[in-house]
Amino acid sequence: MLWFLFDNNKMLIKLNNNQVFIPNQEDIKGLAIQVERGILIGGLENFPCYAAEFSQAPEALPNDFAYMSLRKLFFKTDEEVFGIAGRAYQIIHWVRTHQYCGKCSSLMENKAGELARKCPSCGITSYPRISPAVIVAVVKDEQLLMASNINFPTSFYSVLAGFVEPGETLEACVQREIKEEVGIEVKNITYFGSQPWPFPDSLMIGFTAEYAGGEIAVDNTELATADWFARTQLPGNIPDNKTIAGRLIEWFLQGGTHGLYSNNKR
Amino acid sequence: MLWFLFDNNKMLIKLNNNQVFIPNQEDIKGLAIQVERGILIGGLENFPCYAAEFSQAPEALPNDFAYMSLRKLFFKTDEEVFGIAGRAYQIIHWVRTHQYCGKCSSLMENKAGELARKCPSCGITSYPRISPAVIVAVVKDEQLLMASNINFPTSFYSVLAGFVEPGETLEACVQREIKEEVGIEVKNITYFGSQPWPFPDSLMIGFTAEYAGGEIAVDNTELATADWFARTQLPGNIPDNKTIAGRLIEWFLQGGTHGLYSNNKR
Repeated sequence: MLWFLFDNNKMLIKLNNNQVFIPNQEDIKGLAIQVERGILIGGLENFPCYAAEFSQAPEALPNDFAYMSLRKLFFKTDEEVFGIAGRAYQIIHWVRTHQYCGKCSSLMENKAGELARKCPSCGITSYPRISPAVIVAVVKDEQLLMASNINFPTSFYSVLAGFVEPGETLEACVQREIKEEVGIEVKNITYFGSQPWPFPDSLMIGFTAEYAGGEIAVDNTELATADWFARTQLPGNIPDNKTIAGRLIEWFLQGGTHGLYSNNKR
Repeated sequence: MLWFLFDNNKMLIKLNNNQVFIPNQEDIKGLAIQVERGILIGGLENFPCYAAEFSQAPEALPNDFAYMSLRKLFFKTDEEVFGIAGRAYQIIHWVRTHQYCGKCSSLMENKAGELARKCPSCGITSYPRISPAVIVAVVKDEQLLMASNINFPTSFYSVLAGFVEPGETLEACVQREIKEEVGIEVKNITYFGSQPWPFPDSLMIGFTAEYAGGEIAVDNTELATADWFARTQLPGNIPDNKTIAGRLIEWFLQGGTHGLYSNNKR
């Protein structure tokens, strides 16, 4: 039994030779920790995995234990372990924000037999939320469209992204986001791959696209600046290629052939 | 100004020669209707579009007005109008089910400047929910995998679908759903297209895939039966090809060449 134990967005981990491990039942017993809202969320190498929050996180930990932010964990573990950690975090976040019924304010209950919360009063059921977002590599004349978000450090550039809105296809979302953020039109919108991004509950859906018209006019409510970058002149500070943003940039660097890279294990 | 006015899942429409129109401001005035929660949700041919619920839906309507279910509207209007109607319905459904804060049960408020609800007490913000789901055409030796859901009429068959879970890629979701529902493995998972499906808030993301191993073993909690169907022997009762399910089946019928059809207007 493995425990994915959170204190807000920090997870309890076990360290061994600077390697990250997920605490097991014996570790938890040894630390004399009280947890709440323990939920079975899957399995890893045949060990059942539980997600839970600390009732009260211990301030002092033995040397071989630590708290690690989910974002740091992303870079310190493999895709499979991070997938479960992200799933754990999303489910805990969902339970925490779905204590009460949004329709009638009654206290909700866990539904038997499935990962859902149900209102005993008005009957509505709520499932863990996932917020789909598109992320897009737009290419024009061997140059990639990159932007610096108003919330990014000044020198950090990435490809454009935005949340899907009700009533639109993923492709319409790509067109709307690019149009809204930088004022240009795109064509040949092609699927690239997907990546769960549990900060707190996004699912990034990657696309590549070709420039079709217009001049860059930055919407300064979201972006500070945006420009076309040649392969040899990319900004110095860009996303790690463990992220789908980094993988889209890598796709461009390797020639930008549609369909070169796909994020899934087939 | 156009009004997308709902009484639960039924929308007020205007009929002219059996054609469906969206009521405008004058129509609404003429009907002396009181509405609540009117929200600007977009535009159609330069007319601003508002979504709202009836405080009390009039029982008697003039001859050229009617209530139409969102599902029927899907077949009676074009993609653009249905997109806005679906968006209207999803947003109303979201507002109705997000009256109270799920974390602390306080009454939430509309957030100024964006389509969001905010809790004045604990500060959490909620955006309209979209539930991503995959829908998959699995092909084996020129035969298509189709199943009849326990909730379908007995003779109705479709391709397999299921909601994305936290922490998984779309491709991992395809593999998990097919494995869970019929016990087989798939490969060459290829993106097909997407379609908003506002019943109440799904986004269908279509894929094609090839059979890779295993024997069909139906999970009877969701499916009644599943089988492989040759092109000349498809079941008689299948999804309309305005739906992405129908389009996947059409893709198979036309030879099942990957990438033949894409749902987006490029």
